[in-house]
Amino acid sequence: MATTSKTTRSPLAPEEFPQLPDVAGVRIATAMSGIKYQGRDDLLLVEMAAGTTVAGVFTQSQTCSAPVDWCKRTLKGGTGEAQALIVNAGNANAFTGSNGEQSVTRIVEAVADHASCRPSRVYTASTGVIGEDLPHDKITDQLDELYDTLAPDQWQAAALAILTTDTFAKAAGLVTTIAGQQVSIVGIAKGSGMIAPDMATMLSFVFTDANIPATVLQEMISDIASKTFNCITVDSDTSTSDTLLAFATGAGNQHQSVERADDPALEQFRQAMFEVCCDLSHQVVRDGEGATKFITVTLSGAEDDGAARLIALAIANSPLVKTAIAGEDANWGRIVMAVGKAGQRADRDKISISIGGYDVASNGRAVPNYDETPVAEHMKTQAIDIAVDVGVGQGTATVWSCDLTHGYITINADYRS
Amino acid sequence: MATTSKTTRSPLAPEEFPQLPDVAGVRIATAMSGIKYQGRDDLLLVEMAAGTTVAGVFTQSQTCSAPVDWCKRTLKGGTGEAQALIVNAGNANAFTGSNGEQSVTRIVEAVADHASCRPSRVYTASTGVIGEDLPHDKITDQLDELYDTLAPDQWQAAALAILTTDTFAKAAGLVTTIAGQQVSIVGIAKGSGMIAPDMATMLSFVFTDANIPATVLQEMISDIASKTFNCITVDSDTSTSDTLLAFATGAGNQHQSVERADDPALEQFRQAMFEVCCDLSHQVVRDGEGATKFITVTLSGAEDDGAARLIALAIANSPLVKTAIAGEDANWGRIVMAVGKAGQRADRDKISISIGGYDVASNGRAVPNYDETPVAEHMKTQAIDIAVDVGVGQGTATVWSCDLTHGYITINADYRS
Repeated sequence: MATTSKTTRSPLAPEEFPQLPDVAGVRIATAMSGIKYQGRDDLLLVEMAAGTTVAGVFTQSQTCSAPVDWCKRTLKGGTGEAQALIVNAGNANAFTGSNGEQSVTRIVEAVADHASCRPSRVYTASTGVIGEDLPHDKITDQLDELYDTLAPDQWQAAALAILTTDTFAKAAGLVTTIAGQQVSIVGIAKGSGMIAPDMATMLSFVFTDANIPATVLQEMISDIASKTFNCITVDSDTSTSDTLLAFATGAGNQHQSVERADDPALEQFRQAMFEVCCDLSHQVVRDGEGATKFITVTLSGAEDDGAARLIALAIANSPLVKTAIAGEDANWGRIVMAVGKAGQRADRDKISISIGGYDVASNGRAVPNYDETPVAEHMKTQAIDIAVDVGVGQGTATVWSCDLTHGYITINADYRS
Repeated sequence: MATTSKTTRSPLAPEEFPQLPDVAGVRIATAMSGIKYQGRDDLLLVEMAAGTTVAGVFTQSQTCSAPVDWCKRTLKGGTGEAQALIVNAGNANAFTGSNGEQSVTRIVEAVADHASCRPSRVYTASTGVIGEDLPHDKITDQLDELYDTLAPDQWQAAALAILTTDTFAKAAGLVTTIAGQQVSIVGIAKGSGMIAPDMATMLSFVFTDANIPATVLQEMISDIASKTFNCITVDSDTSTSDTLLAFATGAGNQHQSVERADDPALEQFRQAMFEVCCDLSHQVVRDGEGATKFITVTLSGAEDDGAARLIALAIANSPLVKTAIAGEDANWGRIVMAVGKAGQRADRDKISISIGGYDVASNGRAVPNYDETPVAEHMKTQAIDIAVDVGVGQGTATVWSCDLTHGYITINADYRS
């Protein structure tokens, strides 16, 4: 079993853990469950102030995990309020049948007891190996200690406790304003493999002390997820457990109340929330298993934005494109191939491609007197930019990916054994 | 540029090139064009008897190559007859715009001159690098020599001349009967990467001396391709150039004439044709770039056969499943994940999985007292069998794939540079 401690920090990782603001109404504790990992915290408890609203976006997997089932049901049937979040790493509680459901029930009921709230105000997520029963006692046994050690501003401990094969802790935060009042947003995330839109083996939790109704929070986070977390891919594999939860405690500065997602007072807040999610989603790609290059694919000229996203993802997921980039080879023929296989309209004889801002192909063939020298230089950098126009319409999309390297094989050919 | 000479023969390759029957009405010549490869033949000419019928199945790519365009157009608008096939390896003549079309025209016209036939009876295919103009003179310059050296029964030379990154020559053949008369079928193929259904960087040419009308041949080969060549995957990438052409010379033993694909007289022939194509398609997977395991995924219980194929391909294409198999790890959690991401109906709590014939999961969870020992033994073999039932209907499918290894990365991270 690979653990983070054995793995070299990704060369694409940020230099250091970011400075983050405090989010009023949020307290955090972490602990060691002993379920899988030794010598590191693998349990995260987040306590939120009364009245905290919640919204979520989940994996589209047909085989989603028991915790995802719980969160989806609770969000749908509930009051839109949340008081606690409990997360464990090392066991995904996925494909565990009725035992898995029982484990979730035991955990959320035990947390609800400690929090003196209804179980429907407890959210939970699990990440790790699929198909093994979750020894939930090892989680509930830690609740006394977790509740005893709750403290504000424990973001780094929180971000570390949820990691699996990740090589660095992921967080992002901003202070913004709503109608002139400062509010804070902080998010954490984990994920480095089984990453593909809708969503990925990715957990992300975003907290704000703004006062946002649950319906508004949901509309905002769904829209933002579609442009951030659902536009990243590492290996095209979609997890059973992907979970993005957003919580708004309303415990920060009191600001003018908002009723609708399109309230102009939310403009800056929405942008800040987007930036936090975009940053987190990029950090997931930057920790892509074995990644040595961060790839941005910008697609234009498609029939519509949906088609553009599918073509961009076909490029971003192509093993041949990704290995070419790993080899620092500006092999744009493979980009053409990937456009062709996406199943969306493209005019072969109008396709243009640029790499690192340099035109390599236009009107369906190599540019005249194509000079590969500056493109080859760009391929040696860590941030590879591919822009493609497929020449049929106005649809655009941007997606982010990483290269496919020996490191990916090494990590995944012996993850579990 | 990787060439076959530098590459180790795949561990999954057949022990030797097969014994093949002669196909009456077919003569073969090969030559060196000097376009890309040094010291090996990279040009194939096949001359076929007057009255030979032809049928084809091609890539679904939106960016298909100029030779594919030619073959599709010619098949559609033509008489269903063919007199010559010319193939080159090393340059795909794809994404080459109007220059590419002109190259095809020059080549087929020059061949037609030599064969004293109309250009519409000449079929052509090119495989290799995308996006570089094809120096067609280097092909047409060899036609005199090619026509001077035509000879029957040159299957091995033919199979060798069309290879690119392949590590072994691929051929299969059978003698069968139509209405009591013996007829022969021989096919050759190339392909080892950019392999995914519809179709792959795969060229395959199948020849028979039976007398089969073009429409019957087309119906038969389309159906067979959907169960063979379009059920294999190496890396999920679809080539611009995939071409399967079938030719029936009618020059063998005279047999009762057939008018329809469902003529009972064709029963054995159809089965033999299927076996040849199945064998060839498996050889392509066995030469999958870096492959060390041949994987068969058998899917049942899907909503219909189409859904079964999509789920089977999601498993067969999953980088996480393929790397687990490379690591000889019976990580069936990743199979569950792949079922979940396929976007087709599956009943999570009824899914069952067996590996190597051993049940590992049923009713949506690990089987009671699961003993991994025999499964682990199976994982050490070269032929991995995965059977999955998704518990919703009667749809079934079988697809074939290979593992994802360091070898794949090595081959593809420096193919072109």
